[in-house]
Amino acid sequence: MPELRKDPVVGRWVIMSTERSKRPTDFNKSHEQRKGGPCAFCDGNETQTPPEVLAYRDHGSAPNEPGWRVRAVPNKFPALRIEGTPGRRGVGQYDMMNGIGAHEVIIETPDHDRGLADQDPHQIEEVLWAYRDRVLDLARDERFRYVLIFKNHGAEAGASLEHPHSQLIALPIIPLSVQQELRGANDYYQLKERCIFCDIVSQEAQDRSRVLLENDNFIVICPFAARFPFELLLAPKAHSSHFEFATATEYRALSQSLKSTLGALKTALNDPPFNYIIHSAPLREAESKHFHWHLEITPALTRVAGFEVGTGFYINPVPPEDAATHLRKVLADGAGAEVIPLKAQAL
Amino acid sequence: MPELRKDPVVGRWVIMSTERSKRPTDFNKSHEQRKGGPCAFCDGNETQTPPEVLAYRDHGSAPNEPGWRVRAVPNKFPALRIEGTPGRRGVGQYDMMNGIGAHEVIIETPDHDRGLADQDPHQIEEVLWAYRDRVLDLARDERFRYVLIFKNHGAEAGASLEHPHSQLIALPIIPLSVQQELRGANDYYQLKERCIFCDIVSQEAQDRSRVLLENDNFIVICPFAARFPFELLLAPKAHSSHFEFATATEYRALSQSLKSTLGALKTALNDPPFNYIIHSAPLREAESKHFHWHLEITPALTRVAGFEVGTGFYINPVPPEDAATHLRKVLADGAGAEVIPLKAQAL
Repeated sequence: MPELRKDPVVGRWVIMSTERSKRPTDFNKSHEQRKGGPCAFCDGNETQTPPEVLAYRDHGSAPNEPGWRVRAVPNKFPALRIEGTPGRRGVGQYDMMNGIGAHEVIIETPDHDRGLADQDPHQIEEVLWAYRDRVLDLARDERFRYVLIFKNHGAEAGASLEHPHSQLIALPIIPLSVQQELRGANDYYQLKERCIFCDIVSQEAQDRSRVLLENDNFIVICPFAARFPFELLLAPKAHSSHFEFATATEYRALSQSLKSTLGALKTALNDPPFNYIIHSAPLREAESKHFHWHLEITPALTRVAGFEVGTGFYINPVPPEDAATHLRKVLADGAGAEVIPLKAQAL
Repeated sequence: MPELRKDPVVGRWVIMSTERSKRPTDFNKSHEQRKGGPCAFCDGNETQTPPEVLAYRDHGSAPNEPGWRVRAVPNKFPALRIEGTPGRRGVGQYDMMNGIGAHEVIIETPDHDRGLADQDPHQIEEVLWAYRDRVLDLARDERFRYVLIFKNHGAEAGASLEHPHSQLIALPIIPLSVQQELRGANDYYQLKERCIFCDIVSQEAQDRSRVLLENDNFIVICPFAARFPFELLLAPKAHSSHFEFATATEYRALSQSLKSTLGALKTALNDPPFNYIIHSAPLREAESKHFHWHLEITPALTRVAGFEVGTGFYINPVPPEDAATHLRKVLADGAGAEVIPLKAQAL
């Protein structure tokens, strides 16, 4: 049984995933990824995954058979176990609990070779609805306090499988980064009686220098204090604390924003590895006036080493204004077209 | 001029290092490192570095000439600039300041091929004194609030040069991880009127399962909630908040602990890439009852991707008790001897 252990000083929870345990010589330093389909996530190979927990299907198709458009299945090598009680307990001064949780894969398409950047926005919208439906289902389990929704794209960003997919992890705890954002947003609200994210959206929309794109419902910016080159933030313009309670219009707007943003990244940086993650308020908490859900994209262009991890301090060689200018130019030239020869462009 | 920018939500400062700016295609994904000496840090090549700011030398040798044992020089490609005023200012709701600071390299030995694990403990002690002397010198500059002392070993841990060296960055701000530790330690002190690190040292010394080694003044443990396989914490047993005010006995004890620990890691994991970093209380602050300085070692065996960065949530496949057992066995067998064939050992 995996364990969840809490760092006593900073309150960070860690999964001790004993079942994934490796010998010291087994660490995969090269992060290899088998290239080319078909794979277990491909159309027709449904029996190679655990049985689906969700699928959007065409009429007349049966569960775990072809005919799906988006499909969610339990992770074959879960970091946490679904069965069991939280079992919170102390070990001397330390806090720990059983490693319970859900770990699922959302297969974004039956097509091995079509990533989100190249999808029809309607397909991306279905992926977002799948995220939502899984969160709402898992939120009924009162053991869980948070669902992390994330995507690793490319071997260097931690994706061990090439077929386009996202993941979710339902947790009995709130991850440290979310705790920090909740605390920071709450402090700001106490001071100003305004949502800090609403203020960011409003300042950025006026300033324009860090805006990549904007539609009626969403804004995409390179954050003022971006940690990474070409880091991006997608936020709904209307205040709302929970991703899973967004409106149909917002999911549509987000799917269009995501398509353009990922398309621009792919074109500008030659299909870079990236991660994205949705930050939302904890499950079942009432709508919050101070927290505002959003999606963070971090291209994995620079290696994160112990220095950054040990200090929480980042050195970013590309100011967000330069990244935004560059991505806007790519969008104006028509993202999804050919790769622009970047060497000829000044950054 | 580089800039320091603050994330408005979580308070994390980031260096926008425009002078190190790269074109998008220039990101070095392979993290290559030129192998083999001699290099600019080697004996006889002193003129290839900026003039030294510190050197421990033999009698009769002149600055920037051979005859040194440990030498500190400004980084040739500094992330921050030493000249200028902090220039704290707002940009709308955002906070920023000029990217002032010191960025130095501590060359640990004239010998290109002898890493810390293979050094005489006396040489390691001199490296620690060099850290201390540089911190005390930089602390006189009231613009600086913190000095980060860290070491990247191996290309995968971010070391672009092979010659054994450490780095320090003097900053006008306190890095987020240190802020978090200060806050957590302070919260604990308010509750218990005890130092949380003293309590950790005492529980670990009694429990033994996570202790790698211990001498009169230091203890080396695999932390209870380690984020990484074989992560290690070295802490002085007597309470003390500032690294730079440690006693001569403590520097000697730390040098012996470091030698054994790095030797065990090198033997056990075949000279793995690693980072270490010293966490100390902010410069010029009075001795603190709640903060306790320490050194964190994080082997870079697993890649840190956007998931960890975006969540502050880690999955560690090697429980610290297993790592400690393994490293103790290596120490008992005589670290520095041959590499033990780990495949034959159960973890």
